[in-house]
Amino acid sequence: MSLLIKNAAVYDGFQSYKADIYCEDGKIKEIGSKLEIEADEKIDADENLLMPGGIDVHTHLDLDLGQYRSIDDWYQGTVAAAFGGTTTVVDHIAFGPRGCTLQSMIDTYHDIAGEKAVIDYSFHGVIQDVNEGTLKELQKLKDEGISSLKLYTTYGGMLDDEEILKVLQAAKKSGTVICVHCENDGSIALLREEAGKEGHLTPIYHAKTRPNATEAEAVNRLIYLSELADYPKLYIVHTSTQEALNEIKEARRRGVKNLYCETCPQYLLLTEEKYTEKGDLEGLKYIMAPPLRQEKDKEALWKGIAEGEVDVIATDHCPFFFERDKLNGKDDFRVAPGGVPGIEERIETILTEGTKRGFSINLLLQKLVVNPAKIFGLYPKKGSISIGADADFVIYEKNSYTISQENRHSTCDYTTYEGFKSGFKLDKAIQRGKIIIDNGELRVSAGTGKFLERQ
Amino acid sequence: MSLLIKNAAVYDGFQSYKADIYCEDGKIKEIGSKLEIEADEKIDADENLLMPGGIDVHTHLDLDLGQYRSIDDWYQGTVAAAFGGTTTVVDHIAFGPRGCTLQSMIDTYHDIAGEKAVIDYSFHGVIQDVNEGTLKELQKLKDEGISSLKLYTTYGGMLDDEEILKVLQAAKKSGTVICVHCENDGSIALLREEAGKEGHLTPIYHAKTRPNATEAEAVNRLIYLSELADYPKLYIVHTSTQEALNEIKEARRRGVKNLYCETCPQYLLLTEEKYTEKGDLEGLKYIMAPPLRQEKDKEALWKGIAEGEVDVIATDHCPFFFERDKLNGKDDFRVAPGGVPGIEERIETILTEGTKRGFSINLLLQKLVVNPAKIFGLYPKKGSISIGADADFVIYEKNSYTISQENRHSTCDYTTYEGFKSGFKLDKAIQRGKIIIDNGELRVSAGTGKFLERQ
Amino acid sequence: MSLLIKNAAVYDGFQSYKADIYCEDGKIKEIGSKLEIEADEKIDADENLLMPGGIDVHTHLDLDLGQYRSIDDWYQGTVAAAFGGTTTVVDHIAFGPRGCTLQSMIDTYHDIAGEKAVIDYSFHGVIQDVNEGTLKELQKLKDEGISSLKLYTTYGGMLDDEEILKVLQAAKKSGTVICVHCENDGSIALLREEAGKEGHLTPIYHAKTRPNATEAEAVNRLIYLSELADYPKLYIVHTSTQEALNEIKEARRRGVKNLYCETCPQYLLLTEEKYTEKGDLEGLKYIMAPPLRQEKDKEALWKGIAEGEVDVIATDHCPFFFERDKLNGKDDFRVAPGGVPGIEERIETILTEGTKRGFSINLLLQKLVVNPAKIFGLYPKKGSISIGADADFVIYEKNSYTISQENRHSTCDYTTYEGFKSGFKLDKAIQRGKIIIDNGELRVSAGTGKFLERQ
Amino acid sequence: MSLLIKNAAVYDGFQSYKADIYCEDGKIKEIGSKLEIEADEKIDADENLLMPGGIDVHTHLDLDLGQYRSIDDWYQGTVAAAFGGTTTVVDHIAFGPRGCTLQSMIDTYHDIAGEKAVIDYSFHGVIQDVNEGTLKELQKLKDEGISSLKLYTTYGGMLDDEEILKVLQAAKKSGTVICVHCENDGSIALLREEAGKEGHLTPIYHAKTRPNATEAEAVNRLIYLSELADYPKLYIVHTSTQEALNEIKEARRRGVKNLYCETCPQYLLLTEEKYTEKGDLEGLKYIMAPPLRQEKDKEALWKGIAEGEVDVIATDHCPFFFERDKLNGKDDFRVAPGGVPGIEERIETILTEGTKRGFSINLLLQKLVVNPAKIFGLYPKKGSISIGADADFVIYEKNSYTISQENRHSTCDYTTYEGFKSGFKLDKAIQRGKIIIDNGELRVSAGTGKFLERQ
Repeated sequence: MSLLIKNAAVYDGFQSYKADIYCEDGKIKEIGSKLEIEADEKIDADENLLMPGGIDVHTHLDLDLGQYRSIDDWYQGTVAAAFGGTTTVVDHIAFGPRGCTLQSMIDTYHDIAGEKAVIDYSFHGVIQDVNEGTLKELQKLKDEGISSLKLYTTYGGMLDDEEILKVLQAAKKSGTVICVHCENDGSIALLREEAGKEGHLTPIYHAKTRPNATEAEAVNRLIYLSELADYPKLYIVHTSTQEALNEIKEARRRGVKNLYCETCPQYLLLTEEKYTEKGDLEGLKYIMAPPLRQEKDKEALWKGIAEGEVDVIATDHCPFFFERDKLNGKDDFRVAPGGVPGIEERIETILTEGTKRGFSINLLLQKLVVNPAKIFGLYPKKGSISIGADADFVIYEKNSYTISQENRHSTCDYTTYEGFKSGFKLDKAIQRGKIIIDNGELRVSAGTGKFLERQ
Repeated sequence: MSLLIKNAAVYDGFQSYKADIYCEDGKIKEIGSKLEIEADEKIDADENLLMPGGIDVHTHLDLDLGQYRSIDDWYQGTVAAAFGGTTTVVDHIAFGPRGCTLQSMIDTYHDIAGEKAVIDYSFHGVIQDVNEGTLKELQKLKDEGISSLKLYTTYGGMLDDEEILKVLQAAKKSGTVICVHCENDGSIALLREEAGKEGHLTPIYHAKTRPNATEAEAVNRLIYLSELADYPKLYIVHTSTQEALNEIKEARRRGVKNLYCETCPQYLLLTEEKYTEKGDLEGLKYIMAPPLRQEKDKEALWKGIAEGEVDVIATDHCPFFFERDKLNGKDDFRVAPGGVPGIEERIETILTEGTKRGFSINLLLQKLVVNPAKIFGLYPKKGSISIGADADFVIYEKNSYTISQENRHSTCDYTTYEGFKSGFKLDKAIQRGKIIIDNGELRVSAGTGKFLERQ
Repeated sequence: MSLLIKNAAVYDGFQSYKADIYCEDGKIKEIGSKLEIEADEKIDADENLLMPGGIDVHTHLDLDLGQYRSIDDWYQGTVAAAFGGTTTVVDHIAFGPRGCTLQSMIDTYHDIAGEKAVIDYSFHGVIQDVNEGTLKELQKLKDEGISSLKLYTTYGGMLDDEEILKVLQAAKKSGTVICVHCENDGSIALLREEAGKEGHLTPIYHAKTRPNATEAEAVNRLIYLSELADYPKLYIVHTSTQEALNEIKEARRRGVKNLYCETCPQYLLLTEEKYTEKGDLEGLKYIMAPPLRQEKDKEALWKGIAEGEVDVIATDHCPFFFERDKLNGKDDFRVAPGGVPGIEERIETILTEGTKRGFSINLLLQKLVVNPAKIFGLYPKKGSISIGADADFVIYEKNSYTISQENRHSTCDYTTYEGFKSGFKLDKAIQRGKIIIDNGELRVSAGTGKFLERQ
Repeated sequence: MSLLIKNAAVYDGFQSYKADIYCEDGKIKEIGSKLEIEADEKIDADENLLMPGGIDVHTHLDLDLGQYRSIDDWYQGTVAAAFGGTTTVVDHIAFGPRGCTLQSMIDTYHDIAGEKAVIDYSFHGVIQDVNEGTLKELQKLKDEGISSLKLYTTYGGMLDDEEILKVLQAAKKSGTVICVHCENDGSIALLREEAGKEGHLTPIYHAKTRPNATEAEAVNRLIYLSELADYPKLYIVHTSTQEALNEIKEARRRGVKNLYCETCPQYLLLTEEKYTEKGDLEGLKYIMAPPLRQEKDKEALWKGIAEGEVDVIATDHCPFFFERDKLNGKDDFRVAPGGVPGIEERIETILTEGTKRGFSINLLLQKLVVNPAKIFGLYPKKGSISIGADADFVIYEKNSYTISQENRHSTCDYTTYEGFKSGFKLDKAIQRGKIIIDNGELRVSAGTGKFLERQ
């Protein structure tokens, strides 16, 4: 099985050049000028942008939250991803029932995902029970290619400081990356309760009851705990505030190591005005945690990208129906499920807004593809256009079009970025040398995605 | 009742000048040159240093810790204070039994202290039960002159983040100063448990199991929680690390208000070498929390004094017998009671070391007397040499002598500063115009100290 | 000769208290409550504010600039000062003719000032010829009580870096304070020339051709040169920009010593809008160097006061007639003489605006009186309300009135602060125990001011 | 003319991968796995490291200094470069005679270099006469491919601040990069004169008379001047001190743009101990400006590499004979010519020390090859391993050997890095698809290097 791509304007995350690319057995075999090689399939990229396939390391597909379940399953979610130029996801799986092993959660997700995924995938385990058994599993999971775990400082499955430190100590030994959702639980609980008492129940109070300090505090706490564990790899998910980013910057300046910072398109593109500008009902669409923030935070995050302080842009894709689910919060924002769709919009929105702000496409690809691959043990198999790497590509035209619910592929009945004018339009997505999307059509079926053992 | 002091070299915390001082009815009535006024009592200060009476806002007299009780009661403790040039203490009283009101704890301490104190005094309440009732008491206590409260982020009576935020919100309304003992509870618990398992039980492990990050984390957390409560007065007790001080500095730079920083002589004069240099048994004498730190921390704290980042030097005086109590920890540092004597040594050690480092006496008095008075609502009644202020003075000779157990007045069987060469020696202590110490002799009896209602 | 002041609300720059003050032979003899002492003169302060007499360490009286001469001579200038609550000036005298000794310049100014001054005074020498002779004079002048010198990095008498370093080296030995006017000469020259070519000749171009970077650069350069001379006392005059203040802050953080920062009321109260808001002609009134800056600079300077980074507020008083002198610049701002009146407005404007911003009167007096006295070797003779200090006081009522040209005492035909609503009104000024201003009337005649030998 | 390289371990400054590379007509044509292509020449890289050819943007070949002339001409200098893995130099040519045009200097160097260079080359012009004519030449030279210029803040041809600002303004328009040698002229002149008077004439006084502050001051000054010219491209050459690097960092933090920082191997590998450790005569070998610095500076520069603050590592290669030239300074360091050889040692020393410190080879190549190419308008023709780029490569074995005078190719009679144990040994150098060095032998002759027009 071979593929020859002609006339590509290659952007590999580092350099850009015109080239033809020849792939064999799912790998990149030759990059050259005017290659004349026989191939089973041949594409003319026609001077369009060819980039490594996108890697989204923060998704919640088919996530069971008890009362709610995120509405994209592994088929629909990965289809939307593919249409968004993403050919690899690493999903934050659900908490298992308390008392179960990490392995059993992973096994469950292998079952859920395996037959459905149309793109390659892996999982971050989620740890909520810290005990001798689960701590020992870190090494075991690492050996099986699950080299990252997630924990929460809030919500039902949250860990306390002692438990977190135990996890970090174990991760230091096994080399596991620990992803953390950082929010101060106690103060948010109190502020929500107070909002309730005062009848402050419209969506804007979702933002007001999770002030910036609640994120910054938790980020700082995690960093100090990581210091106590001699700096295992610590990855802060969905950083949304200037204050949290500043804690990360200051930490790096004082010598903290192995610290990674993720943000998401919603924090780079939207602000808390969304909770009010089209009325309270519409505001429910943007209930997510952390909430949308202010202009100054948005700008600080873009500055963090420029200064190299933000490492990754992932989505936290976790959609719920507006009509069926979100509107339950119409009298009380606290009842609406938290999460928004985004898996399909990540690359086109960030390339559009990023280049408008003067960032190079290659710099943006660092955040969208290269760093995610490196941090989570996928590189250079994924995330690289180089000889021997997986032949995962996306080809984008510089054509503008408007994002809207009609042209989305998620199950969701709305898009977070309705009306966004994209300057980039996906032409093709290629995985392991096979065209999976071509000119708006899916060319693979459920189950063709492969599980990725990570280092 | 009147007193005339002749020929004083006055240091009032701001200025120095030669003067005579005339006091009437316990107040400063005249300051002048060559005053010729009839007075009931007359002193010739003989060009010695006359300063406002010392104010120690962090003591633990007669503190019931369950298994142990701090061994200086309100008589012996205030006598030692007076011999150390301190004429006012504000004591961190014990936790009451769970469920009791704050008022009942205060009442208990009025009973304990009232008949014994030889110097003026007040209390910080300690809050361990956060509920509607105790939160309402903040205003009530404030009205009665108890304008500060303490809480802990560790130990049995610790509060969690939600409770702390509630206290801070209430304090914002009542104007109460919240003093906080900042250490990360969970990580210290784990490190101590691990030390136990590994047989790391000598006193140096007391320091190693409370690393600098555990203090800095808690300080930062408190600052963010105070931000959530719109900046009530937050007072960090016994700051011991460069890292915690840096968090305070950074917070002030980003605009955090009403934040105060205390340190203690032990952190300015001693380092963790004390845990080992004379053997493990001797090391037990220095078990206290936070523990002694490293040279770099000591130097950072002095720099903090120079830069105005440290506001107060208090003692955390909390003595236990070495032979009877501390030595219980000879096989396991965790069994030894935590706390050291220091109420008597504060002023002479800090003046000696401080002037050696080039600090002016007046700057040091800011930290020892003026700021404590201002922050805790005692100024200008206490802490000021000005017309109308309480006539509380201490007169020091610039004579050197060596601090040793033999010349101490605490009940304790050792001094934390054994062998320290002091360059200052107390000649007299005067309270409300009355000489209470004269040339090494106590001239008042138990119960002459007065309770101070603070603003 | 004695004076008794009754019922004063004393603000001494450190503390405030109610007291009576008794003075004898020009010195403070007693401070007390209800003093009953016979005195030659007796005042009832009537609970008004009594503060130490103001000290203005940056004035240009009778300054010969060649084409122009500042229009307040030592009589009219010191009268205006006294009406502004200032009882001591230290004047930056003119450059002598090139080649003359520093001593001869000082002698000249003794002649000019001696018979005219109505308040006490001293001089900063100005050094423009750096040679073996003048360098040796630093020690000699110091011995005679001239303990500070000024140099310029721009204008005709400017020194180059090598000369500056020589002066700083000599000052390190003699202990002389070196005051520096910091602006980058070459770039301002070029920008002015370019403005000329482009016909940019209205007053706003005075500001635009001296951008913030020109000040910050020179400040930084001086700090590095002072480092090369092992940190003699370096005093930056009229700091006007956030950027320059930041250089000072950063320098202090990296350990630079003996560095002092002055600003002036014009930079704390006015902005470059003055150059345009009432038309270009009116704008000429504000031609001074450095020029008025932007809102952000003004705010940064007030923040610098709060953070202790600004040490002194002086005036740079250097008036010229609007009609006769300033209007010469009506077709070309470069022709107008640079300088504004301000000696009379300093204390009342700063107290008014400062207290409105929440600063305490005592903190403001640190900048207006205490620090100038300390830095320039006048303290505690001047700048202190303490036993033995000179009996220099000003008494202010908290009465509001509007500053206007009609109620000024400078020779100048306009005031920089026309229309400013002051919240403080001078009642009396007292020098060495003698009332020199009383209820709007001058009670002394030319020549009663004394030359002050400084340490 | 074609070349096939088999089995290379490619390090392209971004990624590493195993590949074969096929070049045609001097360009990279194909990169692939197991390429089977007929080629005129074929190399087996044998799994050795293949990197883009080195680019040294700071050399002084055949530099006329009046009394002295740097001893490597364009033949011997470029031969040494090639043996050091450098296939492109951009040389800082000499000052022309005062009054000549920039063009005439460039022409002169075309003559000097053209017939001798064995590798590709370009020039930075040097501007010492600032006038309307030379300022206009910036655009003209830019159009001819001379897109960078150098100026000095010290030495005979130095510019003053006004002239520098004029150059920066012109450079802003033409897009020319301005390289600056930053040292404070006046203070160094004075310190050297004083050293002379005091008989401090051994080589260590070369370092002592150019203290760190002299560099930091000039760097800061240039940055402010660049701000006044609205940020033309400003490139600080041979940054040698922590203080200067800090000024660059701080500037970037406050938003300064288009600022680049170069350092050199001597500042990353050697310290001022070299001036004394083998005696004063030996110390003369290290006379260069700026001088060698202290350990803390060296470490700060490596930290700057880690943090992305240092952009380029170039050599400042400027050799003089030890016996004939340097020893002239044996009684007075000021007489010895300033400059050291280094063109041959750059890549091997930095790769060796850098990888020992944990830096990746690709990160080091950013500083050695990629950034120099990008900043100076050579990229991606030079500095890139991508389709269409010039086929300039160097192949290194990971073999250790010791650098010594015997194995050098410069004319010089000593090497700055005598005894350095290199972990990398050049196997081949290839330029435009042609092998120019093979296994220790030069395979090209004088004049084969080509002049590079830069963007």
